[in-house]
Amino acid sequence: MKLASVEVRGRNILAASVSKESLIDLTAAVEVVAPGEHFPNMLALVERGYSGLALVSRAVEAALEDVERFPRIALSDVAWHAPIRRPGKIVCLALNNSANSDRIIQGPTHPATFVKPASALIGHGGAIECKSTYGRTHPEPELAVVIGKRAKNVDINAAQQHVFGYTIHNDITSPTMRGEDTFNYRAIHPKKDAPDEIVYVDSWVSYPGRYKCADTFACMGPWLVTAEEIPDPHNLVVECHHKGRLMTRDNTMNLFHKVPDVIAFISGYMTLEPGDVVSMGTALQKSSKGGAVQNIDLNELGGPIAVTIEGLGTLENQVVHV
Amino acid sequence: MKLASVEVRGRNILAASVSKESLIDLTAAVEVVAPGEHFPNMLALVERGYSGLALVSRAVEAALEDVERFPRIALSDVAWHAPIRRPGKIVCLALNNSANSDRIIQGPTHPATFVKPASALIGHGGAIECKSTYGRTHPEPELAVVIGKRAKNVDINAAQQHVFGYTIHNDITSPTMRGEDTFNYRAIHPKKDAPDEIVYVDSWVSYPGRYKCADTFACMGPWLVTAEEIPDPHNLVVECHHKGRLMTRDNTMNLFHKVPDVIAFISGYMTLEPGDVVSMGTALQKSSKGGAVQNIDLNELGGPIAVTIEGLGTLENQVVHV
Repeated sequence: MKLASVEVRGRNILAASVSKESLIDLTAAVEVVAPGEHFPNMLALVERGYSGLALVSRAVEAALEDVERFPRIALSDVAWHAPIRRPGKIVCLALNNSANSDRIIQGPTHPATFVKPASALIGHGGAIECKSTYGRTHPEPELAVVIGKRAKNVDINAAQQHVFGYTIHNDITSPTMRGEDTFNYRAIHPKKDAPDEIVYVDSWVSYPGRYKCADTFACMGPWLVTAEEIPDPHNLVVECHHKGRLMTRDNTMNLFHKVPDVIAFISGYMTLEPGDVVSMGTALQKSSKGGAVQNIDLNELGGPIAVTIEGLGTLENQVVHV
Repeated sequence: MKLASVEVRGRNILAASVSKESLIDLTAAVEVVAPGEHFPNMLALVERGYSGLALVSRAVEAALEDVERFPRIALSDVAWHAPIRRPGKIVCLALNNSANSDRIIQGPTHPATFVKPASALIGHGGAIECKSTYGRTHPEPELAVVIGKRAKNVDINAAQQHVFGYTIHNDITSPTMRGEDTFNYRAIHPKKDAPDEIVYVDSWVSYPGRYKCADTFACMGPWLVTAEEIPDPHNLVVECHHKGRLMTRDNTMNLFHKVPDVIAFISGYMTLEPGDVVSMGTALQKSSKGGAVQNIDLNELGGPIAVTIEGLGTLENQVVHV
C-alpha cells in the first residue's frame, strides 16, 4: 500500500493511493469497514502494528470495489505533509555509500549517525527555506526506513520485522554551516596512569544542529510505502533531478551498511520507536552527464529538486529565500 | 512552582511540590479547582500557555490551604520521569563556557548545537546504562531551558517570553564513541570558477548519534521550575558530585552565550516548540579539590553522579552495566 498524510480542503487526513491520480480518506474508510476503529493519523496507524495494517488493507480493498461509497480525492487537490508528521526522531547515516570508500582517510567501520528533529520536516511540494547566511546548501537523496515496532538490542536476523515501510528523504545539507560549526580545539582527556589529572589533545568536532537540522531541511515523502511492496530494499534505482537535469543515478545496492545491519546496530545503543525514521545515507553516484549533488547549490541556483526512488515515487520540492 | 512528571503506585501523573517532602497530584487538583479542565501530562500544560499556568497556580494555592481535600504524596513514594517525557527535541549547546576559551583553536562565535532525541531521556533516580563498547563516558552538568511558546525568528528582546521554566540536564557523553565516529575524509566541494566540477578538500566531521544520543544519555529533572522563580538564570551555582565528592563548582554566569541570545539565534534557523528543551552547555569549572568532569569515567567508576543547580534541586543518577 501507498499511504500518505495530506491536507485536503483545510482538513488533515490519513490517505491511501487507489489509482495513479487519486486517493481515499483512509481514516473515514476504516470507520466504514470496521466501525469503532479510528486512525486519526499515520503515527496512530503505525503504533497499532500488524492489526492496523490488516484493517487499512481491508479498507483499501473495499474502496477499490466501491467508488461511490469511498469518494476519490484527486492528487491535484491535496497538499502533502511528511508521511509521519511528528516522528520521535529521524536517525540519519553518514557516508554510507560505496562511492565514499576512496574518500574516507580515517573513520568507523560501523554506521555513524546523527539525529534530525521532526521540526525539520516538510512534505512533497513543500518549499525548502534558504537564508543568505546558510551559504552553500545541497540535496542528499536517501532511502528512508519507517520503524513499525519498538527495537532495542535487536538481532540482525529479526531486524526486518521492525520495518513498517519506506519513504524518500532529501537530507538537505549546508556544507558552509558545517564548516562554520566545526571546532578545532584542545579536548580534555584524563592523563594515562594518573586518571585524576588531565592532558589536552588536539581534536576536531563538528555539530549538525544548523547544517542538518534547520527548518525544512528534511524533505520527506510523498508516500509511505508499506514493507510488503518492497521485497528487496537493496536493489532500487535512485535518481536526483535538479531543474529537470539528471544529476545522480545510483542504486540502493551501493549502500555499504544494509537495512537489517543498521537497525540491529542502532538498536544496540538507541531504542527505535514506532514512527521513527532511519535514513540510510546519501545516494551520490553521478549520472553519466550530471555533476555531484555537492554541485547543486540550492541557495544559489534555486529549485525544483526532485528525488525518485524505484517503487517509492518522486519527492519534489521548490526553494524559497526567507 | 516546582512541577514534576512522576509515577506513583503504577500511575503516571503531573505533580507539584507543596513541601520539602511532598507532592500533590496536579491533574486531579486542577479538576477540583476548575472542573472540566484537564492536564494529563506536562506537555499538555506547557502547550496551554499562560492560562494553564494560572490554573495550576490556583490548584497549588488551594492545596496548600487544604490538606484533606488534596492528599499529599511522599517524595519517597514516587519514581521520577524527565519533566517533559516526550519533547519534540532537546537542542544542546557545545563548548558554551568561558572556561573553554583558551581551548578553542578555531570555531564559531555563535552558539553551535546538536539535537538529542526524547528516547535518550531518563528522570531523577533513573539508571545510566553503560556498555563496555561505550568506553569512557562522563557527565556534563547543564542548565536546561524549557520552551513555553513557539519561537521562530524571535528577536533577542522578546526571547525571554518563550521560556516556560528551567530544569537540570546531565548531558552524558562518551568521548571514546566521539573519537570512533569522527571521520577524516576528502569532502567534495564545487570547483571555484567551474561550479560543475569538483575538488576534494581534506576535512574532519564527527557525528553525535552514539556518543550523545544513546538511551539514558539525557538525565533530566527532577523538577521543572517555572520561570518566575528564577528571575536571573545567569547567576546560579552549579555543582557536580561524583560518589559524594565535589568535582565541579561553577556558575551559570560563566555561560558565554546567554539564554535570550541562544533562543533568538536558534529560532533563526530552527523552530522551537512548546516543550522543547534547550540545554545551555556544560558547567565545567573544576572545584578547588575536584578534577575535570572528563576525569569521571562513569563506565569505569560507576555512580552515583549528582548535579545540583541553585533553585532547581539535585538530579542524581546511578550507573548500570547492560
